[in-house]
Amino acid sequence: MVPSGGVVARIIDEVYELCRADTSGTLADYIPELAAVQPDSFGICLATADGRVYGSGDLDTAFTIQSISKPFTYALALADRGPAEVARHIDVEPSGEPFNEISLDPQTQRPRNPMINAGAIAAASLIKGTDAADRFARIRRSYSRFAGRELSMNEAVYASEARTGYRNRAIGLLLRGAEIIDIDPDEAVDRYFRQCSIDVTCRDLAMMAATLANNGVNPLTHERALTRPLVEQVLSVMTTCGMYDSAGDWVTTVGLPAKSGVGGGILAVLPGQIGIAVYSPRLDAHGSSVRGVKACRELSNRLGLHFLHVTRAAHTAIRAAYSVAEAPSRLRRDTDELDVLHEFGDRARIFELHGDLLFAGAESTVRSVEETAAELEALVLDLREVGDVSPIAIRMFNDLEAELAAAGCRVALVDPDGKLGHLVSSLVPNDPRGRVFIDRDAATEWCEQLILDAHRPPGQECPAALTIEQHPALAEMPDDERARLAKEFETRTIARGEIIVASGSSRCGLFLILDGRVRFTFTDRDNRRHRLITLTPGMSFGETSMLAGVPYANDVYAETTVRVAVMPTARFDQLTDQAPDIKLALLERLAAAAYTQADAAVRAVAAHGGI
Amino acid sequence: MVPSGGVVARIIDEVYELCRADTSGTLADYIPELAAVQPDSFGICLATADGRVYGSGDLDTAFTIQSISKPFTYALALADRGPAEVARHIDVEPSGEPFNEISLDPQTQRPRNPMINAGAIAAASLIKGTDAADRFARIRRSYSRFAGRELSMNEAVYASEARTGYRNRAIGLLLRGAEIIDIDPDEAVDRYFRQCSIDVTCRDLAMMAATLANNGVNPLTHERALTRPLVEQVLSVMTTCGMYDSAGDWVTTVGLPAKSGVGGGILAVLPGQIGIAVYSPRLDAHGSSVRGVKACRELSNRLGLHFLHVTRAAHTAIRAAYSVAEAPSRLRRDTDELDVLHEFGDRARIFELHGDLLFAGAESTVRSVEETAAELEALVLDLREVGDVSPIAIRMFNDLEAELAAAGCRVALVDPDGKLGHLVSSLVPNDPRGRVFIDRDAATEWCEQLILDAHRPPGQECPAALTIEQHPALAEMPDDERARLAKEFETRTIARGEIIVASGSSRCGLFLILDGRVRFTFTDRDNRRHRLITLTPGMSFGETSMLAGVPYANDVYAETTVRVAVMPTARFDQLTDQAPDIKLALLERLAAAAYTQADAAVRAVAAHGGI
Repeated sequence: MVPSGGVVARIIDEVYELCRADTSGTLADYIPELAAVQPDSFGICLATADGRVYGSGDLDTAFTIQSISKPFTYALALADRGPAEVARHIDVEPSGEPFNEISLDPQTQRPRNPMINAGAIAAASLIKGTDAADRFARIRRSYSRFAGRELSMNEAVYASEARTGYRNRAIGLLLRGAEIIDIDPDEAVDRYFRQCSIDVTCRDLAMMAATLANNGVNPLTHERALTRPLVEQVLSVMTTCGMYDSAGDWVTTVGLPAKSGVGGGILAVLPGQIGIAVYSPRLDAHGSSVRGVKACRELSNRLGLHFLHVTRAAHTAIRAAYSVAEAPSRLRRDTDELDVLHEFGDRARIFELHGDLLFAGAESTVRSVEETAAELEALVLDLREVGDVSPIAIRMFNDLEAELAAAGCRVALVDPDGKLGHLVSSLVPNDPRGRVFIDRDAATEWCEQLILDAHRPPGQECPAALTIEQHPALAEMPDDERARLAKEFETRTIARGEIIVASGSSRCGLFLILDGRVRFTFTDRDNRRHRLITLTPGMSFGETSMLAGVPYANDVYAETTVRVAVMPTARFDQLTDQAPDIKLALLERLAAAAYTQADAAVRAVAAHGGI
Repeated sequence: MVPSGGVVARIIDEVYELCRADTSGTLADYIPELAAVQPDSFGICLATADGRVYGSGDLDTAFTIQSISKPFTYALALADRGPAEVARHIDVEPSGEPFNEISLDPQTQRPRNPMINAGAIAAASLIKGTDAADRFARIRRSYSRFAGRELSMNEAVYASEARTGYRNRAIGLLLRGAEIIDIDPDEAVDRYFRQCSIDVTCRDLAMMAATLANNGVNPLTHERALTRPLVEQVLSVMTTCGMYDSAGDWVTTVGLPAKSGVGGGILAVLPGQIGIAVYSPRLDAHGSSVRGVKACRELSNRLGLHFLHVTRAAHTAIRAAYSVAEAPSRLRRDTDELDVLHEFGDRARIFELHGDLLFAGAESTVRSVEETAAELEALVLDLREVGDVSPIAIRMFNDLEAELAAAGCRVALVDPDGKLGHLVSSLVPNDPRGRVFIDRDAATEWCEQLILDAHRPPGQECPAALTIEQHPALAEMPDDERARLAKEFETRTIARGEIIVASGSSRCGLFLILDGRVRFTFTDRDNRRHRLITLTPGMSFGETSMLAGVPYANDVYAETTVRVAVMPTARFDQLTDQAPDIKLALLERLAAAAYTQADAAVRAVAAHGGI
């Protein structure tokens, strides 16, 4: 039995032990409540963007959020007022100065950024609400959405801050004088004191960070706390201004958007991946937790979390690319058609895409298509394994379709979720832009048909309806044998969509297809049913089951109205005694069917890499 | 015929037209040479991290690199001296001030960062070389490696800068006085003037940016210009300090590490993906190209290039996960073994991984394994589709293997390139840590064997050698029929590794396997040969070819020493006339073989998503 989370937990434990040895730094003591904590408290918590939490130490000890509130109130102000209006009140430039500098721009009087106290008080002034109580309640609820639980304010800390915060009250007055805030400055400063006094735990901060990492959606409650563009804005400002006058060093050595508070917390975000929180109340000269800074640096170095440390995964969105000649559809074709597809099948290509489609992934895909486009007549783009599709990727694929259409190449999108915005196929039957399919096999068959229509020699036709005497199983027999055998069969018509043989049945008769299309299906791991193969007139099925008595592994459906000639089981068995020579001759002719079916399945395995 | 690059080129053309309309700004005129350019020149160039170049306008007009040289000389200083020594001379904090401020730290006297002139001159002073000429030559060659062609200096611009650069010469003296530079300050300043006078084109800058995007390797020449950790350091400093006093606005609205120069160039990098360069010589008040800033903003917005705009692709490295019960190996097993694998096969699981393995991908994989580990007895980790593996991921997988070993679960790595550092299987035959394989099928079979060894009911044995009379094709016939039929076969022994039937052969006889393992292989799209299926004693092959006359699609090998009973083609054909009843009875018993082979292939298709 393996302990769940053991591997990652051990790495975090190592960082914890390493940093715990450092007992330097001093408690914030400008109000007695901040100095009343356990100085040795220490917790490290890491939450993934999909909600798994790892941690060591004091994960559930409450402390006040302090300046870590700043990005979250700024976020709410952006949501309430829009980025343009907020920008008129607060700039986004690093000040290069400590957190309590007033740092107003000499021309505009705007606070340099929302991470210094002046900017944070200005942000608090911009929160909407019916009255002061409602405005603070909205802040508290917003933080709670990030944390995924109801947070509350520490009354004692708030009372103490409110009693002694002279400098912040002065900042409020200066901002009011400069017309940066247009409400009662005491209300704005009071709201700022309240937001700084909200109690959080190390686990709460990690979830708040993970919500930012997860593009604004809390990974556990799945509640959206902030829209995606505003998450980018907040993380941008945290990147340049979050660590005050050590921003450059932080970006270089840690490389994560972050915010610290004098309560002893630090929160850091690896966008798309991870939220980190550390709590340890002894502070360095910048007002940041000594162990917190050290733990973030160690985690970033050991886990390789620097946000400029990139994967190469973005290089290509192409999971696989091949032609219909290499991986044909499951429609079993006759020899004439196979010959055409063998010769011209490389003019119909299939691209399987995966991952999220941002510009770089779309660019590499479009480029690959364009590079083969000179002789391309049909294209399957399979988007089912694609995640998010950015607006630029949609535009690029639409442009590509138009370009291909102009060059005479049609596109089959396998896009059941409408990721490219085409929810249904065009109602125009021969729309040059192509069609939308829900599975790749159908899209592939459609492309094969385009190739066949363009390149089939004149006179070759699609398989037509047969009489039983014309069926290849009997056609070349001597007349008397054929006549005798034909009488052993009965003819059946099956309506479109009905089951001919259900999976699990065995020995249901020997079937010769006279008209229509017969589909064998199988069920994948996700319980979706797919076509294994489609058989057409002149083909047969049921031989192996009749001979070996094994059950059908597949459901057999009528894809269109189907007419079959069936030799019932009893007749098949009697024939062994009555006419073994004729039965043997029949079986020899039918053996090719089993072979071809096995061969088609093998080719599919080879083409799709199930190796 | 589709024009190659059409889709992306059109988007860049749109941005180009949009920005070209803006003719505001003024040429740098502090030396006459800079004012002598075509003010309306304008080029936009985008190069992907794999070397595809897109562009509009004046891509090949030469201009001087000016301040865009700063990150590249800083990079060479880091490479020459190491980050620790460079940090003793130059800080990495944003100054919040214009580029020509002297901005020395009041305590340490260090320039605030290497992107202001003082820091750049300090960086130039740190370059190693035999003499001043060699030191500059090393700078020029380093830039050339980034650009992928030999760059040269513009003598006229250099002469003019050298004649008039009073302020920079003053900075050199101040730095010497503060002991930040320890060489002749005139040499350092002269080197700085020379590096600023290197001629580049918009295309050159895009390739230099793409080299940074490509982790320091020029995408076209494949020459390494900088190590990966130093690329991160340089991009970090560009992020916080590259755009001087508009760094915060730049990070918020463009979100790309960047550097501008008064020559009219701007260079921006999307790590891992794209390099961008813009050239247009009219400058704004910050000294940056007006159209350059606008074009970068438009490209970032339209193409979604903000570096905090992340994909969700990092969430999981797991491409597919399933048990050996769902997707068995290609070894065809007898009914007893199939029963055991059906019941216990979910204790052996296969994880196919893909993408680069950084912490988040490794974490999600390790977590998934740990969550199923309670009942896991064997694990296949297929790493063949994995790209870069970070050190932390190697550590985590090694820890996981040790954890699993302690819990009694063994691991089969499919890792022919040794990405996890195990180049060969342990020499210890029963190493509890498991084994390394080069393909997944062999690894899967090994895990199946572990399950069979652990769970096979006592008394069940592996398939043993048979006599022809014991072979299931004959065993249950009446004695006289069996004796008569047995005489129609001849026995052959085939040495390990030899071909029994070559692909393309047809009607080579009917084969009953009496001893050893017979392997059918197929060749994939990349011309690699893989096992389709392995047959064991009691099984047969060749029926469909004998009946239908179709050629073998596969090579058939002896995986071990093999003994088979063969009915030659002539005997098979004669039997139709001489004893159709016996032939029919034989064929009925053998039909199951064709069926099972087709069924195995279908199951493989279903399990691996070839749909």
